[in-house]
Amino acid sequence: MNFKQELEGLKKAIDKELGTHFDRIIVDAEKKDPLIAEALRQTKKIAISGGKRIRGALVCHGYFGAGGREKKKIMKVAVAIELVHLYLLVHDDIIDRGDLRHGEMTLHEFFAHKKKKTSPEEKKRFGDSVAIIVGDMLYVLANKLVAQAGFGANETVQALALLQDYVGTTIVGQSQDIAIENDRSVGEKEVLAMYENKTAKYTFESPLRVGMALAGCNDRKTFGSISGYAEAVGIAFQIQDDILGVFGSEKKIGKSVASDIEEGKQSLMVVKARQTGNANQKKQLASILGKKNVTKKEVAAIQTIIKETGALAYCQKMAKEKFAKGKQEIEKAILLKETKNFLVSLVRYLEGREI
Amino acid sequence: MNFKQELEGLKKAIDKELGTHFDRIIVDAEKKDPLIAEALRQTKKIAISGGKRIRGALVCHGYFGAGGREKKKIMKVAVAIELVHLYLLVHDDIIDRGDLRHGEMTLHEFFAHKKKKTSPEEKKRFGDSVAIIVGDMLYVLANKLVAQAGFGANETVQALALLQDYVGTTIVGQSQDIAIENDRSVGEKEVLAMYENKTAKYTFESPLRVGMALAGCNDRKTFGSISGYAEAVGIAFQIQDDILGVFGSEKKIGKSVASDIEEGKQSLMVVKARQTGNANQKKQLASILGKKNVTKKEVAAIQTIIKETGALAYCQKMAKEKFAKGKQEIEKAILLKETKNFLVSLVRYLEGREI
Repeated sequence: MNFKQELEGLKKAIDKELGTHFDRIIVDAEKKDPLIAEALRQTKKIAISGGKRIRGALVCHGYFGAGGREKKKIMKVAVAIELVHLYLLVHDDIIDRGDLRHGEMTLHEFFAHKKKKTSPEEKKRFGDSVAIIVGDMLYVLANKLVAQAGFGANETVQALALLQDYVGTTIVGQSQDIAIENDRSVGEKEVLAMYENKTAKYTFESPLRVGMALAGCNDRKTFGSISGYAEAVGIAFQIQDDILGVFGSEKKIGKSVASDIEEGKQSLMVVKARQTGNANQKKQLASILGKKNVTKKEVAAIQTIIKETGALAYCQKMAKEKFAKGKQEIEKAILLKETKNFLVSLVRYLEGREI
Repeated sequence: MNFKQELEGLKKAIDKELGTHFDRIIVDAEKKDPLIAEALRQTKKIAISGGKRIRGALVCHGYFGAGGREKKKIMKVAVAIELVHLYLLVHDDIIDRGDLRHGEMTLHEFFAHKKKKTSPEEKKRFGDSVAIIVGDMLYVLANKLVAQAGFGANETVQALALLQDYVGTTIVGQSQDIAIENDRSVGEKEVLAMYENKTAKYTFESPLRVGMALAGCNDRKTFGSISGYAEAVGIAFQIQDDILGVFGSEKKIGKSVASDIEEGKQSLMVVKARQTGNANQKKQLASILGKKNVTKKEVAAIQTIIKETGALAYCQKMAKEKFAKGKQEIEKAILLKETKNFLVSLVRYLEGREI
């Protein structure tokens, strides 16, 4: 079985469990409150219509790789990690005013549209309100699922404490993201710190560590190796995402190549172009980034500046080096061979994402 | 020592621990992210400037009453429950667009004011964004504090699972509150269900049950008694709060008597007045409730309608009966005498709140 087949198999298994769990909590919510039930139905739709379940797959591999054997139990935690992901997405979408997620209406948008006969402000307030509390609910449900997955009490407490730490780190990353928005003085250091907190630790380190904790793993050397892997691969993944966001094909990335530009996203690529650009290039960057409804010509102008300043090459090189570092780091980990292979193959798979 | 002295003593002890904990997490946040650190400083200000710490006191009494003896550990959980309270308040204030909390600026307002040189919409978006993620952070910190308070792993898992359940119930209550806002067809049943979920279980049952879980209590009869107590006292407390909100002295309740009216709050009192009022009274209710900047004359008109329809007397009677029921319910609980006395005295204390 090759890596892609393995990941797809895991996704299928996680999706089945995720769907069943959503159905269960929706039935439960229907007895208590129709609004929450409706919100959970929309969240299920969003969840099922996209995503590769990399986080859930990493929970499983962290667990099995560290010697765990209880498949049914760990699948519940894989589902919990996906609920945590949904919780963070729901709140992030309110903050970023995102309209669509996996082609479905985001929660706050969905409920803003539901509120009839009122002002646009009141529609927005209603949508945001429901999305805030339903995000909160998803996190509560995730914690509960971990608490009741059936693992030993010591392992469960450790996994829950780790989960709080990692969600805390992700929130720090979100805060850094909010703080640097539209800040033209931001440098490489701040952007990389944000990538580490918001992406690397959250997507790669936290699921692996939660899975390992539930298998009773206590090996500090392996923790260090996982940390090194996650940091390198997570940052490379984010940089690659930024490149795809501006240079990718709309069909493949599922969003407009203008959206990152219109959002005025302070990516490493943009920061680098600003640092190394000449006066004219800087002026153009300042005038186009963050503008609403940018034209194709303006997108092309940004692409040219990012290429000509060397920012694109700089980022491509960094991503390549970090992916390579990730593969090296994992060698030191004391985990089953299958898991180490999976983690290395995951890097190769991510590296190969098409532009 | 009388009840008031005891409650004040507990408040003082909890506040000391709460202050120390805030200082610790602020120092920690300062290393990672100045924005989160600043938000936690403002949250500490809000926390310290008001509140009676009833929830924290109930955690302690649930624990000691069920035979627990580790004061230092349970104080950490009392602090955690206060952090949960702050988390819910922060998100609730965004939803209700509250400006002040205990006389201090609410988080979203504080940060909206901080954002200079931008449009009112962007100021609001920034304030809301920071308040959403900092609310999230407070809950993460609360869960972590429970996980690491030092209790046995089994008790800790049970306490954490209970906490998720109760926060989930509170969110259902918030959702019911959002759904019935401005809904003139809402009846007594819906309002009481909302009071039970949003206030009774959250303020009275959850801290007692978390404390009891940490003492290893497993007595179903006592759980039932606590549930009955919480439901009765919580609903009575909320009804009384509604009465104070419209008939209280502004000085004592710390907010304008117009604010509940301007908010268009669907209290039991309002629902009852609408049900029993004549055509003219109904018309007046519909035209004044939810209006911005109501006059003193309009406040007086609402007060008169609530009195003349018998809604005030109905609510006063229900509150009285429920307070009495609460005192009875607690008799059945198997808990130390000191705790049972505390819980009964708490009811007397709440009953005696001045209008």
